Amino acid sequence: MLEFDKLSLNIPDTTKPRVVIIGGGFGGINLAKKLKCEDFQIVMFDKQNYHGFWPLLYQVATAGLEPDAIAEPLRKIFGSDDYQDFHFRLVRVTQINPAVKTVSTPIGDLPYDYLVIATGTKSNYFGNDQIKKYSFPLKKVPDALNLRSQFLQCFEQASMTIDPEIRQSLLNFVIVGGGPTGVELAGALAEMRKNVLPTDYPGIDFGKMNIYLVEGMDRVLPPMSPESSAKTLGYLQGLGVNVMLNTLVDSYDGSVATFKNGEKIIAHTLIWAAGVSGALIEGLPTEAVERGRILVNTHNQILGYPDMFAIGDIAFMKTDEYPRGHPGVAQPAIQQGKLLAKNLQRLVRGEKLEDFKYHDKGSLAIIGRNKAVADLPKNKHLGGFFAWIIWLFVHIMFLVGFRNKLVVLSNWIYHFFTYERGTRLIIRPFVRKGDRAKRKFINNYNADE
Amino acid sequence: MLEFDKLSLNIPDTTKPRVVIIGGGFGGINLAKKLKCEDFQIVMFDKQNYHGFWPLLYQVATAGLEPDAIAEPLRKIFGSDDYQDFHFRLVRVTQINPAVKTVSTPIGDLPYDYLVIATGTKSNYFGNDQIKKYSFPLKKVPDALNLRSQFLQCFEQASMTIDPEIRQSLLNFVIVGGGPTGVELAGALAEMRKNVLPTDYPGIDFGKMNIYLVEGMDRVLPPMSPESSAKTLGYLQGLGVNVMLNTLVDSYDGSVATFKNGEKIIAHTLIWAAGVSGALIEGLPTEAVERGRILVNTHNQILGYPDMFAIGDIAFMKTDEYPRGHPGVAQPAIQQGKLLAKNLQRLVRGEKLEDFKYHDKGSLAIIGRNKAVADLPKNKHLGGFFAWIIWLFVHIMFLVGFRNKLVVLSNWIYHFFTYERGTRLIIRPFVRKGDRAKRKFINNYNADE
Repeated sequence: MLEFDKLSLNIPDTTKPRVVIIGGGFGGINLAKKLKCEDFQIVMFDKQNYHGFWPLLYQVATAGLEPDAIAEPLRKIFGSDDYQDFHFRLVRVTQINPAVKTVSTPIGDLPYDYLVIATGTKSNYFGNDQIKKYSFPLKKVPDALNLRSQFLQCFEQASMTIDPEIRQSLLNFVIVGGGPTGVELAGALAEMRKNVLPTDYPGIDFGKMNIYLVEGMDRVLPPMSPESSAKTLGYLQGLGVNVMLNTLVDSYDGSVATFKNGEKIIAHTLIWAAGVSGALIEGLPTEAVERGRILVNTHNQILGYPDMFAIGDIAFMKTDEYPRGHPGVAQPAIQQGKLLAKNLQRLVRGEKLEDFKYHDKGSLAIIGRNKAVADLPKNKHLGGFFAWIIWLFVHIMFLVGFRNKLVVLSNWIYHFFTYERGTRLIIRPFVRKGDRAKRKFINNYNADE
Repeated sequence: MLEFDKLSLNIPDTTKPRVVIIGGGFGGINLAKKLKCEDFQIVMFDKQNYHGFWPLLYQVATAGLEPDAIAEPLRKIFGSDDYQDFHFRLVRVTQINPAVKTVSTPIGDLPYDYLVIATGTKSNYFGNDQIKKYSFPLKKVPDALNLRSQFLQCFEQASMTIDPEIRQSLLNFVIVGGGPTGVELAGALAEMRKNVLPTDYPGIDFGKMNIYLVEGMDRVLPPMSPESSAKTLGYLQGLGVNVMLNTLVDSYDGSVATFKNGEKIIAHTLIWAAGVSGALIEGLPTEAVERGRILVNTHNQILGYPDMFAIGDIAFMKTDEYPRGHPGVAQPAIQQGKLLAKNLQRLVRGEKLEDFKYHDKGSLAIIGRNKAVADLPKNKHLGGFFAWIIWLFVHIMFLVGFRNKLVVLSNWIYHFFTYERGTRLIIRPFVRKGDRAKRKFINNYNADE
């Protein structure tokens, strides 16, 4: 077994300023792409070796795409000769030490000249350990693969029981959180119920399959316009999704979801898409953290630390226009990453830094075939087929690699004409996190065996 | 948690003869496709919900293809109206009971009229539990994904150590078994070393990466012709693979592979592709099992049981031409499955059964770009570019679904022109089976978390 003391970060010494970037998400990669390796040494840490296009993760969960279609290896992104002094390390940063300007990892510390925290968010269970234990998150590639196997295995098991309560429990899917992830997942599941599942599972009456979308506020897609929320609600209901507004989950024990209003739903599967909080790191000055995010000024500088920055979802930049911070989507992260690259150059040259100004390009959500909503700049709202076309176009354009664009586009064209879902492979054991230790498998199928 | 006693096989009663097929491999699906649902009720059991094209599994392991490209859901294959009385169950068969003509599963027994065992093979470690514990097999989709993550994480770790012995151990890959899996994997790794890895890992000197292909016999690809073996050896050596013939592994403790001749190689990764044995089931009459396979007559009937059959890799049909049974490749399984469908019809009608006669269509192996070998009928042998073109054509044609053909073809065309490997994503923890319980992760990346 490889011991940590045999490893070291192994970053070459340099006379250039060293920029350490924690996180290879939208903020991190856009910053690193714009920074010039003649002027800086760039070190990027991430716990994963890929950059993911997470807005499409729900399609991995619903057997529409494979992970390679929405994720791109970070080493591939930074593999060209332009990045001669770029160093990726697949290591977790355990602590930052602003007083001595170093970051700590399990295999050693590294001094930095500039530190950029771009770690994004993690699922937030609001302290409910039972829900954390039994629910399915949808934040990472393995989450999506787990969820896909869970969906399919629920149907496999539902075709093997005559007990009506067990069967109903396997066919009830509770999605908590009416944001984009919850809405898009609910829509995709509803489309599968219509087009793919009845052929695959002729023994199941899919009239009995229920998709519950639970939202605590009074409308779905709360970050979007009321017009788009209303349209989305109509689309979801048209697809047969049971939308429960103004509803909060109280508990979930793996079998029964109980809501604050006392209502109960038996369900073998509960997906938690209800909240995120910043993926904070040990060592941050306490005064810099508010509501789980890092307070920054309009240069993304952490207050009191001119050489320490936070960008993207984890950054909390209060402005008059966005007193609660920018929306937790890709665009602010991308724009902040690009601007910070310029500002770091300016900082080195002793020039004045440019203030961040968010250019809202609008927001989009897809519910199903020909059904999407778009909030465009200048308060314009679109729905239906045109919004759907815009959604397709924008998502294809944003995918990182040339190959990924092609893979996704060809998959979508294929799905559109065939109503197929290609990747209905169960490659994970049928087991919830909470049950893992004690679970027996009737199909003896364990990914680890 | 779902208890077994709440589940049942839930197969409808029928007045037609019921054919129970255990296994959805080449034999099982070709049998089921040809059997007419007007005449039979067909029940298929498998531990996986997909049929896999395993000859391309090594490409999943070497980041060339995603699992969906080489696997097809069984429910999709049998989803059309032609299969009204076909029933798939994702359940392990624990025992067969020929005396009462039933099969047992964890959720109940099922009577059969005809039983077909098409379970294929499993890795055979020849009783060496230490090798079983520490080596990587390459038999199933999760194996390939594990191995891919292992390869990539070895390089990640190698870029984070200055200890020369640790680094060498991470860069040594020992592949045991010079059959098609071992040869094709060694070739694909050697191509990655040449084209992809130096760009991804500029900090690693890939002149120090070693690929050892260990074979107990005196030539690689022993099932093929001596001409093809010799050509293959040349191609492998040209790609810089260290081929060790007449060499047997004695032990592997996760760090050091020791050979019977006393030689030792330090290696963090050892891939076991050295042998398979039949995936036998409890309850088979002992006199029907020889060398881990099931003895059958020329109708694939198990001796003494006219209603019990074995087809494909697990069947051991001794003939004058094949005294040691047919080769363990797809063609005998396909041909036996198709013939058995006809013979079951004949059996029901009281007609005479047809003897199986294997039509050898030749065999192929690929070593790398423009490098393949082919043994064609009439003792013709091809190598190089022409064999490579034949290999590409045959493998594309054999892929099950229309979509899979397109996905694989477009991936290959892309790889050919770009020298890229698209799917270099680490989605599994860096841990060998033997270390799993005690392993700590420096990147804190655990697929289950």
